[in-house]
Parts: sequence; structure tokens; C-alpha cells
Amino acid sequence: MNSKKTVTIFSPATVANVNCGFDVLGFAIEGMGDIITLTKVPKNGIRITSITGATLPLEASKNVAGVAGLAMLEYLKVDFGFELQIKKGIPLGSGTGGSAASAAAVVFGINQFLENPLSLEELAYFGMKGEVVASGNEHADNVAPAIFGGFTLIPGYDPFEVVSLPTPANLYVTIIHPHLVINTKDAREILPKVVPLQHAIQQAGYLAGFVSGLYTSNYNLISRSLKDVLIEPYRKELLPLFDKAKNIALQTGALGFGISGSGPSMFALCKGEEIADAVSEKLNSLYQTSEIKIDTHVSKVSEKGSRVISVYEE
Amino acid sequence: MNSKKTVTIFSPATVANVNCGFDVLGFAIEGMGDIITLTKVPKNGIRITSITGATLPLEASKNVAGVAGLAMLEYLKVDFGFELQIKKGIPLGSGTGGSAASAAAVVFGINQFLENPLSLEELAYFGMKGEVVASGNEHADNVAPAIFGGFTLIPGYDPFEVVSLPTPANLYVTIIHPHLVINTKDAREILPKVVPLQHAIQQAGYLAGFVSGLYTSNYNLISRSLKDVLIEPYRKELLPLFDKAKNIALQTGALGFGISGSGPSMFALCKGEEIADAVSEKLNSLYQTSEIKIDTHVSKVSEKGSRVISVYEE
Repeated sequence: MNSKKTVTIFSPATVANVNCGFDVLGFAIEGMGDIITLTKVPKNGIRITSITGATLPLEASKNVAGVAGLAMLEYLKVDFGFELQIKKGIPLGSGTGGSAASAAAVVFGINQFLENPLSLEELAYFGMKGEVVASGNEHADNVAPAIFGGFTLIPGYDPFEVVSLPTPANLYVTIIHPHLVINTKDAREILPKVVPLQHAIQQAGYLAGFVSGLYTSNYNLISRSLKDVLIEPYRKELLPLFDKAKNIALQTGALGFGISGSGPSMFALCKGEEIADAVSEKLNSLYQTSEIKIDTHVSKVSEKGSRVISVYEE
Repeated sequence: MNSKKTVTIFSPATVANVNCGFDVLGFAIEGMGDIITLTKVPKNGIRITSITGATLPLEASKNVAGVAGLAMLEYLKVDFGFELQIKKGIPLGSGTGGSAASAAAVVFGINQFLENPLSLEELAYFGMKGEVVASGNEHADNVAPAIFGGFTLIPGYDPFEVVSLPTPANLYVTIIHPHLVINTKDAREILPKVVPLQHAIQQAGYLAGFVSGLYTSNYNLISRSLKDVLIEPYRKELLPLFDKAKNIALQTGALGFGISGSGPSMFALCKGEEIADAVSEKLNSLYQTSEIKIDTHVSKVSEKGSRVISVYEE
């Protein structure tokens, strides 16, 4: 293998937490993602040769994609390395899984080069190793859907496990990205260390109801389960106009509305594209009257996760 | 309708909480239950004419079956009443849903007489009204499976909702009933009012994993999800030899082991009857060496809930 080969991977943006599933639930969206081109090189390790679309460290040990790739290469004990060209398509710090997408793309790409020695679940595990750089703790609720696509559940971290959940056919999402900076670590520190047992029970019921709703395409149950008594009451304080935006989205027919990941993006899950478009329009109107600038993105909940978009060999 | 008609209903014993699903999850078992014969009478209200198998108040307003029946009759505004003969087949205070079974049987029976004006979910709601007498708070995690059969989830109480979950074909349960008295109210008071957020998240992940496991008949996922970091650490202190019994059950091949409802009964969920029988045998041996007397009962997880077992009309 002295020929030069490159593989280019697309990994989608993702919404984590999804109201009732803090740290365990997430889903993939369409039309927004990171693109990484991997080139196999004789020298061990990971070298990042370019990053476009965002200002991020080129040093592999300080970059989520680099850290994830290095963890995987070390585990597999390969005697060569990779050069990465990273194109960020997900705005930094938006709360839609930008770091997870880059980590997902690199582990998915390495696996392609090696003819898939690892399962998607194992890739999510190594992808998660990159997340530590971004958020300071290991969580896989973005990286799992960025790899698997659709909805994913992390029922537990010990042992680490990913469950791929069904995606009802008619689920769309409106992403609302306000141009604010919320540090992921700050968003964690605002949370209480202890919660009422009663709230823990309620939230578990919502999550279980949501999972059941996905298996049965029961949009009413999905809607009733998109609640969050544990996290949202604290984090919404960081998001201007959150309550107003939520009321408008629900009145417009959204199944649910909440914070995407640790914010600042918000999401509205909707039955059908029309409602998702209407939510987008109304929330653009709302924020136009404020000092906060927003972008919105309407997408189907995507069953597609990371994938090869081109292979080049000479 | 001046003829005399009686309807006799069987409602099964149930296991609530099921490790990961405190207050929201339960399932029905076979071969153990309460039997109530209802006779329609001109006089409004509920009159309990006999109770066999246990010593319980005949006064309707102090009896779970009476309270549940009265709540339903009041809601339906009927201008007649019922006499009840109650045969308790579930040991009082065993933690296997005895009060729920009686409440379930009476509301199911009244519904039969009235040609089913209420849905099973509505019956669970009125059945729950009886539970207040027994435990001091409204919960439906026993009464829902006693009515629906199989596994049921209560994703929320506002609005009140019951989700009937699938029952994998090969699930058996061993019930271990130690002859101890644990007051349901005491078992609630031993619980903490607040829990670490981290434990709440873990437990929600287990419950969601368990629900997913039921939909996909994934026994490994079911097994890994039968964990309880919120309740068991406190309540197991009330149960002699709990840790030993759990270790033995898991080593014998049980998918999981935990406290049935608020105890003192314990349960082992097993894949296949052979393992359930083996668990029963080993735990009988364990407790024979102690001062605690136990009964064990092996059953399939039953898809059958409350049902008519005889109708008599003259």
C-alpha cells in the first residue's frame, strides 16, 4: 500500500438531551455537518493539516478529532498514521454537536481505511474520548447519533452501550441558533448536584414514554413525553426569550421544544415539515424584535449517520 | 333488569418498580390473584358482603376495592349499586399488588356490568383511587398491569396515561415472599427526598434501555437495564439476606433481581422457566438456613390482566 488514498467522511449535526433524555438521548439532523478528509501516511499518529470554517487548534492532542483518532489508533496498535483536513460545517459552540461530528468523522474514517475492524458502538466509544476536550467530561449523546444516525440511547456507560432507536417517518426538527456564546462547562455548572426524587421519577417516566413513542410511531405520546423537569428550569435562564419561543412553537403545533444539548441552540420537534417551517418563520419573527440574532435550520430527523462521501486513490 | 346477575373477576398479582421503574413500571404474573364476585343491587353504592383469605375491613370506604368501586360509580352517576364477595389470593402486605388486584377486579367488574363504558386506562385511573387507602398515595404501577396484563408503563400522571409494553415470549419470574411485615408507608419514608442528579440520569437510562429491550426482545439489554441506583440501596436494608439472595439469583442466571413493589417480596426475572425454577430452589435453600420463612412462586410474565371467569344470571 504505497499508493496515496484519501477518504472523505460526512458526519451530521445532532441534537442531544431532547428534553427528557439528559446525557443519554440524541438524534441526527440533515443538511448540516462536518466533513473530514483522511489521508493515510507512514508516520504514526494524527496530523491536522487544515481546518476551515472555524478557528480550532491544529495540534492533534488539543483537537477533538485528533484526540478521538489518537485513542482509536492507540487501541488498534496500527503502525501508520493519518493526516486530516477538517471542514467545519457546524457553528462552534452552537449546541448542535459540532465537536461530536468531528470526532465521529475521524473514527468512522479510520475504520473505513482499516476495513471496519470496529463496530459502530466501539466507534462511538472512541468518538466520546474526543468529547472530553470540548466539554470536560465523557458523554456520547451527540457522538452516538452522529455515527449511527436516527435516535440513539446510551442506557449506560458501564458497560458502554448504544441502542439505536427507531425514527418515525414524519419527524422534522427546527433548529434555532441564537448568536450567543454559552460555555459547555458553565452550562454544566449551573445544574444542581441533587434533585428531588419525585422529579427523577417523573423524568424517567417521560424518557421511557418517549422511547415507547418512537417504537410505536405514537406522535401524541412523543409529544407528551418531551418534558424536562430536571435541566431546563435551570438552563433556560441562559437563553433570552426561551419561554416565549417555547410557547410560540407549541402553539404552532410543535410536538415539543427544548434546549439542544447545553445550548444556546433550541429545537422544536414537529410532525411534518410544514409545522417545522411554520415554527421557523414565527421564531424568526420573534427574535427580529429582540437584540438577539438567530439562524434557523429545518431538517428531517435523519436516519443517516456518518458516511463516506468520496474516496480518492492514485 | 330485575333478574339477578353476578359476574366473577380474576385480577392477577403484579410486580411493581422492577428495579429501574420506581412508581412507573410493573408487570402481571400468573397463578396468583384476587377473585371478586359482583352482584348488581338496586341500592346505590358498594356493600362488601364477605372477604375470605385475609382480614380486611368490610366497610367500603375503608377497603381498596370499595373505594375504587365507589369512585367509579360516582363518576358514572349510576342509580344502582353492587355487592362484593372478595376472595384474597394474594398474601396481604407481600408487595405483590394485593390491594391493586382487588381494586382492579372491582372496577373491571363494574365496567363489564355496564357494557364497558370505560377504557382500560380509565379503569386503571379509578383503580388507583383505591390504592390511596393502602399506601397513602396515588400510584398505578400495580393496578395498571393488574388490569392490562403484561408490562405497563405510567409515563405520567398529569395527564394520567398507561402505556402497554410488549412482553417478550420467554420471560419468567420467581417471586420470593419472606414472611415479614413491611408497612408500605414505612418503605416510602426510608427513601431520600433528594437524589444525586447523576443517579437520576443513570436510572432514567436503565428504564429507557429496559423499555427498548422489551420492544426488541433483547434479553441482554433487559438484563443490563435491571438496575436500581435510587431505591434499592435504601430499601434492601429492610430485607434480611437481600444481597446474598441477589448474588445467588444472578449467579444462577437470572436476568435481574430486585424488590417487588415496596417489599418484602423480591423477584428474579429470568429467561426461561428452568432458570426461574433453579433460582427458586437455591433461594429456598438459602433461607432455610436462616430464621426467615419464605414462599416462592414461579410464573410466566403474564400477558393476561383482569378477566371475567364466570357469569351467572337467573
